[in-house]
Amino acid sequence: MPKIIVEVMPKEVLLDPAGKSVNNALHRSGHNEITAVRIGKRIELHFDRPVTDADLAEAQKIGENFLSNAVIEDVVSVTVQN
Amino acid sequence: MPKIIVEVMPKEVLLDPAGKSVNNALHRSGHNEITAVRIGKRIELHFDRPVTDADLAEAQKIGENFLSNAVIEDVVSVTVQN
Repeated sequence: MPKIIVEVMPKEVLLDPAGKSVNNALHRSGHNEITAVRIGKRIELHFDRPVTDADLAEAQKIGENFLSNAVIEDVVSVTVQN
Repeated sequence: MPKIIVEVMPKEVLLDPAGKSVNNALHRSGHNEITAVRIGKRIELHFDRPVTDADLAEAQKIGENFLSNAVIEDVVSVTVQN
């Protein structure tokens, strides 16, 4: 099924308390090679027909205006999976 | 900064009420070309050195055993961003 994948992450300048907690837990489990963890969202938009360039442009807009909060989050990637 | 990106989605057989709500809202805004929406997680593991194949294998395990709940979620992708 054709999909557009929109990926949203908390802005780098912001704390990410959930990511910090996961990082601490990984360190307690011995994974000291990991220096930080950040947790964001991966949103799949499904289509019942092949995805067009116009869909992709629209998905970028949807990602920026609807699926993310521009004050605290960035849309880091919008990709097609046909 | 080198990172491993772990992507986790709700299993396809399960309902995703948040995704359903977003889909309904997109339809109300006129985006009827989108047939379904599913919302998952995108987790970045940061490293202060280049990522090795061993790190990637370990991240797959961390994704399956720690970052996701295998009863309701699948790890759909583990990729390196060097």
